[in-house]
Amino acid sequence: MTLILGLDIGGTKSAAVLGDETGRVLARESGPTPQGAWPEAVAFMVELLHAVRPPTGEIQAVGVSCGGPLDSKTGTVHTPPNLPHWDNVPLRDLLQAEFGLPVWVENDANATALAEHQWGAGQGTHNMAFLTMGTGIGAGLILNNELYRGRRDLAGEVGHTTIVPNGPPCLCGRRGCLETLSSGTAIGRIARERYGDNALTAHDVCDRARLQDPLAQSIIADAAFYMGIGLANLLQTLNLERIVLGTLAVQAGDLLLDPIRKSTQAHCWPRVWDGVTIVPAALGNAAQDMAALAVARFAYPLQNKS
Amino acid sequence: MTLILGLDIGGTKSAAVLGDETGRVLARESGPTPQGAWPEAVAFMVELLHAVRPPTGEIQAVGVSCGGPLDSKTGTVHTPPNLPHWDNVPLRDLLQAEFGLPVWVENDANATALAEHQWGAGQGTHNMAFLTMGTGIGAGLILNNELYRGRRDLAGEVGHTTIVPNGPPCLCGRRGCLETLSSGTAIGRIARERYGDNALTAHDVCDRARLQDPLAQSIIADAAFYMGIGLANLLQTLNLERIVLGTLAVQAGDLLLDPIRKSTQAHCWPRVWDGVTIVPAALGNAAQDMAALAVARFAYPLQNKS
Repeated sequence: MTLILGLDIGGTKSAAVLGDETGRVLARESGPTPQGAWPEAVAFMVELLHAVRPPTGEIQAVGVSCGGPLDSKTGTVHTPPNLPHWDNVPLRDLLQAEFGLPVWVENDANATALAEHQWGAGQGTHNMAFLTMGTGIGAGLILNNELYRGRRDLAGEVGHTTIVPNGPPCLCGRRGCLETLSSGTAIGRIARERYGDNALTAHDVCDRARLQDPLAQSIIADAAFYMGIGLANLLQTLNLERIVLGTLAVQAGDLLLDPIRKSTQAHCWPRVWDGVTIVPAALGNAAQDMAALAVARFAYPLQNKS
Repeated sequence: MTLILGLDIGGTKSAAVLGDETGRVLARESGPTPQGAWPEAVAFMVELLHAVRPPTGEIQAVGVSCGGPLDSKTGTVHTPPNLPHWDNVPLRDLLQAEFGLPVWVENDANATALAEHQWGAGQGTHNMAFLTMGTGIGAGLILNNELYRGRRDLAGEVGHTTIVPNGPPCLCGRRGCLETLSSGTAIGRIARERYGDNALTAHDVCDRARLQDPLAQSIIADAAFYMGIGLANLLQTLNLERIVLGTLAVQAGDLLLDPIRKSTQAHCWPRVWDGVTIVPAALGNAAQDMAALAVARFAYPLQNKS
């Protein structure tokens, strides 16, 4: 059995896991991410990893899933929005020095794409995208069976493709980004505006739409319409065979997925759409742990194949 | 010296070329593409290739550049819009049987992307797109130094990504496709509408814009604005380092390229835009010949590397 270590670094919580080559989690330690200077946070990550490392047995590699931007070639974490005190942290070098093991670092969307491709809803596909639909919309792309990172690990930032020119303002400073129209955050914001109720979230909108509330249904329909444009643009560009949607799409299920599928099809060539499946992510609560393990196992297939 | 054969199949004209591994054309034969049943057209292609094949000297491979849709794995040409009598033509098998040589078939956008990447404006880049801006808008994508084809050779159909939801009707049956806003055809159509002059083309618009005609300038500005959104969406998705634009962009030069660059930058994250270059195609009149040669030389790098 090949053993690997995974480290999932989140803005509020982090976890280290010991796993095997099938993505099974054998041990897990987690705790709140230290919010001070980054050396303190890294020391805590080292502690978590030591806590799950078995006293005997050979570990093949350590995989880290972390918010971007980061540099996967050097394993340096720049300044992720959810880790404001991190600044060009040489995470790979620090962990390699501590553990004497190969360490790979990927951003969380890419890590989850690897996990869904190998162990989840993307199994068996050659060309697929995994997209989160939570606070924001970010994608990990698997092209020709490998993670595609782009020039500087910034591939897959489809949440900030422009869907409506001069559309609603986005936190990124531009307008009409997909994220302003179809993310969980956007659905909540639109609901608060249209209902005039400041407590509403995307989940409330889904609950009301299930009860046939016409306003909630129209909010879901709008978000799905624009999401379908974003996905169709991705399909026209990359001729994928599968799209795996996470977060809100998993929670809402076909209530959201069906209109997304319909809009995607309507905005695609029939030849491009033919045979495409749009499915919810399959790894559930274990997704983040498995994402970190998938980085250890698959991030650099040439090195990890043996 | 490695010799290769190239065949460029167009809707009205076709050409066969003998070339070397640097893309230099050593011999060329061309003629009008037979418009009848496809076996006649294929017989003509065979004749063209025989005419440029040297009596002695070893040929490494034959590369074919042809309108899609086609299947590059089997070398079967489906029913390209510009070759209406072609229907699932097993072109690779026919040419392999005739010449006893490896034959590779790629669609023209992909073939030109290979040529620009290896011998033209994309040299030295790892991640780039080549886009035509003529009758339509189509892209060839080079990702991690290799041609990316997608599931069924349909990657790069960015001319039919939706830029304006519910925008102008497109020949493909949908609305607001990039092609309806920024192609040479679109610029001509918009000029004919706005000037009320049925003879105008995209070239006339460029000529008038150069003479500071405000209406022509606004038509160019609009087309460049939307093209910039399409390119920015491509950059946000693929984190490319270079975009090479052909056809009208080559003819119009910075008149069109400068506002395209400005709009692309405005619709991109600064981190994604940083270091990106948008440049005109460099192969000029020889582009189609070199595209066919590039298919012979680079379409399947593993087979062609020796």
